[in-house]
Amino acid sequence: MVTKGFASDNNSGVHPVILQAIADANKGHVTAYGDDEYTQRAVKKFKEIFGEDIDVFFVFIGSAANVLGLQSMTQRHNAIICAETAHINVDECGAPERFTSCKLLTVETTNGKLTVEGVKKHMHGFGFQHHAQPKVISISQVSELGTLYSVDEVKALANFAHANGLLLHMDGARLANAAVALNKEFKEFTKDAGVDVLSFGGTKNGMMYGEAIVFFNKKLAQDFMYTRKQGLQLASKMRYISAQFSAYLENDQWKKMAAHSNKMAELLAQKVAEIKGVKITRPVEANAVFAILPSEIIPKLQKEYFFYVWDEETSEVRWMTSWDTTPEDIDNFANAIRNNI
Amino acid sequence: MVTKGFASDNNSGVHPVILQAIADANKGHVTAYGDDEYTQRAVKKFKEIFGEDIDVFFVFIGSAANVLGLQSMTQRHNAIICAETAHINVDECGAPERFTSCKLLTVETTNGKLTVEGVKKHMHGFGFQHHAQPKVISISQVSELGTLYSVDEVKALANFAHANGLLLHMDGARLANAAVALNKEFKEFTKDAGVDVLSFGGTKNGMMYGEAIVFFNKKLAQDFMYTRKQGLQLASKMRYISAQFSAYLENDQWKKMAAHSNKMAELLAQKVAEIKGVKITRPVEANAVFAILPSEIIPKLQKEYFFYVWDEETSEVRWMTSWDTTPEDIDNFANAIRNNI
Amino acid sequence: MVTKGFASDNNSGVHPVILQAIADANKGHVTAYGDDEYTQRAVKKFKEIFGEDIDVFFVFIGSAANVLGLQSMTQRHNAIICAETAHINVDECGAPERFTSCKLLTVETTNGKLTVEGVKKHMHGFGFQHHAQPKVISISQVSELGTLYSVDEVKALANFAHANGLLLHMDGARLANAAVALNKEFKEFTKDAGVDVLSFGGTKNGMMYGEAIVFFNKKLAQDFMYTRKQGLQLASKMRYISAQFSAYLENDQWKKMAAHSNKMAELLAQKVAEIKGVKITRPVEANAVFAILPSEIIPKLQKEYFFYVWDEETSEVRWMTSWDTTPEDIDNFANAIRNNI
Amino acid sequence: MVTKGFASDNNSGVHPVILQAIADANKGHVTAYGDDEYTQRAVKKFKEIFGEDIDVFFVFIGSAANVLGLQSMTQRHNAIICAETAHINVDECGAPERFTSCKLLTVETTNGKLTVEGVKKHMHGFGFQHHAQPKVISISQVSELGTLYSVDEVKALANFAHANGLLLHMDGARLANAAVALNKEFKEFTKDAGVDVLSFGGTKNGMMYGEAIVFFNKKLAQDFMYTRKQGLQLASKMRYISAQFSAYLENDQWKKMAAHSNKMAELLAQKVAEIKGVKITRPVEANAVFAILPSEIIPKLQKEYFFYVWDEETSEVRWMTSWDTTPEDIDNFANAIRNNI
Repeated sequence: MVTKGFASDNNSGVHPVILQAIADANKGHVTAYGDDEYTQRAVKKFKEIFGEDIDVFFVFIGSAANVLGLQSMTQRHNAIICAETAHINVDECGAPERFTSCKLLTVETTNGKLTVEGVKKHMHGFGFQHHAQPKVISISQVSELGTLYSVDEVKALANFAHANGLLLHMDGARLANAAVALNKEFKEFTKDAGVDVLSFGGTKNGMMYGEAIVFFNKKLAQDFMYTRKQGLQLASKMRYISAQFSAYLENDQWKKMAAHSNKMAELLAQKVAEIKGVKITRPVEANAVFAILPSEIIPKLQKEYFFYVWDEETSEVRWMTSWDTTPEDIDNFANAIRNNI
Repeated sequence: MVTKGFASDNNSGVHPVILQAIADANKGHVTAYGDDEYTQRAVKKFKEIFGEDIDVFFVFIGSAANVLGLQSMTQRHNAIICAETAHINVDECGAPERFTSCKLLTVETTNGKLTVEGVKKHMHGFGFQHHAQPKVISISQVSELGTLYSVDEVKALANFAHANGLLLHMDGARLANAAVALNKEFKEFTKDAGVDVLSFGGTKNGMMYGEAIVFFNKKLAQDFMYTRKQGLQLASKMRYISAQFSAYLENDQWKKMAAHSNKMAELLAQKVAEIKGVKITRPVEANAVFAILPSEIIPKLQKEYFFYVWDEETSEVRWMTSWDTTPEDIDNFANAIRNNI
Repeated sequence: MVTKGFASDNNSGVHPVILQAIADANKGHVTAYGDDEYTQRAVKKFKEIFGEDIDVFFVFIGSAANVLGLQSMTQRHNAIICAETAHINVDECGAPERFTSCKLLTVETTNGKLTVEGVKKHMHGFGFQHHAQPKVISISQVSELGTLYSVDEVKALANFAHANGLLLHMDGARLANAAVALNKEFKEFTKDAGVDVLSFGGTKNGMMYGEAIVFFNKKLAQDFMYTRKQGLQLASKMRYISAQFSAYLENDQWKKMAAHSNKMAELLAQKVAEIKGVKITRPVEANAVFAILPSEIIPKLQKEYFFYVWDEETSEVRWMTSWDTTPEDIDNFANAIRNNI
Repeated sequence: MVTKGFASDNNSGVHPVILQAIADANKGHVTAYGDDEYTQRAVKKFKEIFGEDIDVFFVFIGSAANVLGLQSMTQRHNAIICAETAHINVDECGAPERFTSCKLLTVETTNGKLTVEGVKKHMHGFGFQHHAQPKVISISQVSELGTLYSVDEVKALANFAHANGLLLHMDGARLANAAVALNKEFKEFTKDAGVDVLSFGGTKNGMMYGEAIVFFNKKLAQDFMYTRKQGLQLASKMRYISAQFSAYLENDQWKKMAAHSNKMAELLAQKVAEIKGVKITRPVEANAVFAILPSEIIPKLQKEYFFYVWDEETSEVRWMTSWDTTPEDIDNFANAIRNNI
């Protein structure tokens, strides 16, 4: 059970630096539920990155960051526009509908990215009482297909949203991978580009648990402390999330991990592309590699390495790299493919 | 920030044994979302304690264990009967109503404990379509007022519930403290006494995060994996909760911590009872001490030690002891009271 | 099945004037969903009564008026304070919790009426994230125990609510009976007294179906058209509700019916009070009479006349009079009691 | 306001026979909430049509029949598969999501009709906890594009649903038009074809208000009386819905109205097809006619006749006929088109 595969960045463990931060926070008593110095320090870190005029709240998981964030942006009769492949649409078991009561309006895309053009098909029925009223455009950065929004692409969607009375939400479960790949500061492609509410992920990039919801539009955060509590996402021993985030954000720890992970994806793509019968299917822009394999070798390969088949019909599979992926892991995996083909 | 107070057992840290278990689990890759050996081991532990014929699921916090457990026991038109002081009624920001859509029917009690007699006032309107239909009796063991249900008291409520087509839920946020105080195995006063669904706490007794929902009535667990996911309580890196629970349940770790905590409460009660002007107001049966202080000294004392005023009108306060409370902490605190009186 | 009893004002039929209005509206085509002249006329009537600065919406039933009104006044993490006997608490099968996600905080009362003093017990925990935040005080005029709030009593509750950041909701299922009994214009004891949102009833006083939600605080009505539609309360053939309301509000039709109904309650109370063994238990202020009967005669009497036992323990029963109750109905009923005693 | 147009069958009034039935029911007192002879008679009518082994409940509107029916067929973590054009998807302001918490999975269709082939794209992810679990296929008979499912097409979908552990829901807002067009008994293309829960419409075909939910799968109806009450759809003066349904179902009243309506659609299609520049775009199978007009004449025509533009891009419009449409209405309308072209 100590093998390392390419199924998910969630399968990796916790970076030693993060684990140490948890251990260091384990001293004496502090007030529960976030009224503690560890949390103050972590919040301060976020404000250093995004500016003082934000609100930030910690929750347990990325789905909660997405769903409670979306809840704070909507009324029950609203609709949320997202890519058909969006995590909120396909991987949260209907939690967005359950919590927000909103309808999800999906857009087919080529590589998991919304465009203004694609969004437009849902921009109608405003003021018509029979129609769930569009209120939020939600994008994932990195997208679920491993692709990136450029700063300009985010801006275009934000401007379009705001010009039409909508808000822009960003699912940043892999925000660190995006920042590295774009070679930009977090702020440049989120707050400065017009994002209103951001899910800021940590778990997929070396943390144990804990995600942040960052409100650039502070009005939306007004009652959020109750929303979080009622949404079952208020940690009693909050310091252990906060300490992780401080360590994550200090000394470019997040960047080192994400940079490594992205680099490993590049290497993986390069190694498997050399194998006859394997075809890379998507741009490799962050830490995901999508490829088509001969369908008969997939079950054989899965005996050694668990990973997800993305599309049964086309035999497209997804491989994720992680902060702890090594070149040896990649060589071994490439060899395994070769041996099975 | 290394002082130790008596505000809440949530203010304490994580026991070194638990922390070590987390560190030990931090090896290589394992499948996310609970399909891993650590989780199998933890589940096995629960089955050793409660028998094979149970289902157990891990969530992040006690409120989630309560609320999702209750959701799995009810239809939307049901009602849940609980003590007016129940955590689900006063400390979960309306999450039970939000998630279950059920009405909470409260009963006034003397020391936080429901009785069959008290429950009866809500046992009417069955089959009357205008009336939210009672379906669950929920009790807290230890209660929010630090008191215990005897095995016979649990049985009486379970029998009454079942005889009337209702189910029994137990909020066991402090179940370890109860087991020690009752000097009983967990199973004796839960499953064997007729409890249908149990919230099994860990965080308040030395864990970092993670609680369990134990289904003795397995039919109720049928769709629970979806309920948990949609309820935003499925941990991606589940192994770190599971590893904690294994360590908690092995070598009587839970018992050592709870026994210490209970003993410290006894000591605290004894020490403060000697102080003129302090009156213990509730039976001290687990790790809570309730007392009335001269109202003018409370703010003075709170400058050094944060704790909750339970009842503003009567100046009744609540003090909780923890796995890490020391006799010195108690002496210091008793002295602080004495100095302020 | 053509007998007339005293079980409920909902058991009575439709006044011929109302029925005629429906028939008169049955001409040609009009735009569905309320964009029609009948609805414009009915809305105009409401504005004549309450002033131009209101918003009014029609729904099917009183529970919907209450529940959707309350939804428009609250966020999901709020609490609603009401009498323990309130219709929203005991007769709507948990719909308020289901729709609003709010907690209902109940107050015991003597005759179904809230007082500032009674409300105060729930006025705590503001700003404490674990606590459902009180936001609305809801009162029923006439109350469920047949009693009335004076203008001053409404004002006292409204002032208290507003001074504390809360809103005042009035369930006016029997508002016409209240207006007659108080000898006041509708506006005097609602809008002018500080009510924010009013459920304005019609069905219990001679209409077939249809209730109104009147927003004196127009900001709360901002998205209400969507709330109504999504709440399944938007009538396609709206004109038939609107025509009823116009007829109801024209020529004092509402007043004639309610005055008669109230008078019949007075007569009923007087007649039964003369019967030995019958004890009137509540002030008879509108169209309800509460009385204690010898318990053994209740089932006998119910063979001829269906009515509700209000309190099984004390043998207290409730009788309602209606717009179509006649003195003969009362004589017959009084005789039936006499014959059974 | 007495003109008759082609905007919607909801714009028409109430058939005199139905209105008379309402007037006839307006006698004396009957027990409220459905425990009355009128309701018993109406339920008996439904059982004559569909057999004794059904449950039937009346609600106010078609959206409520759909939404509460779907709620009774699902758990919160389920998904409902429907055509992209389904009323539940586009015309109920998100009520299905709000009430059921389920995700709607949509299928693009040519003429508003689902096929097994089309449904299949959503038949995956079963047992995968991250995925909202498909549980219901919902079809509209007549479809929103005026087309019909043959008995065999319904059977194919029912068989497919049941073979895969799903249920079949039918939105029968225009069921009478379907029965006439198919020349079948109601039972043949609903219960006998495998439908589990049916929304049985009346309002669009000459009734004032009131729709029925018919459960062929009686287990699903077990708690429905509470679902209806909590869903704000229990009429107090139920007799006026029931009397309408009895009159609707007696003497083939429903059939006469629907047959007329369908025939008028045929006539309308024929008349407008003769006009140069008008193109009928969908099969005219019931009482809807879809056509493309020169876009510039639409606003002119709408000055006289209100109707809906179905697709702004293609200038496709929808015209509905009704029980009260006359050949003269059609001639006048055809002339108006001619004059504007």
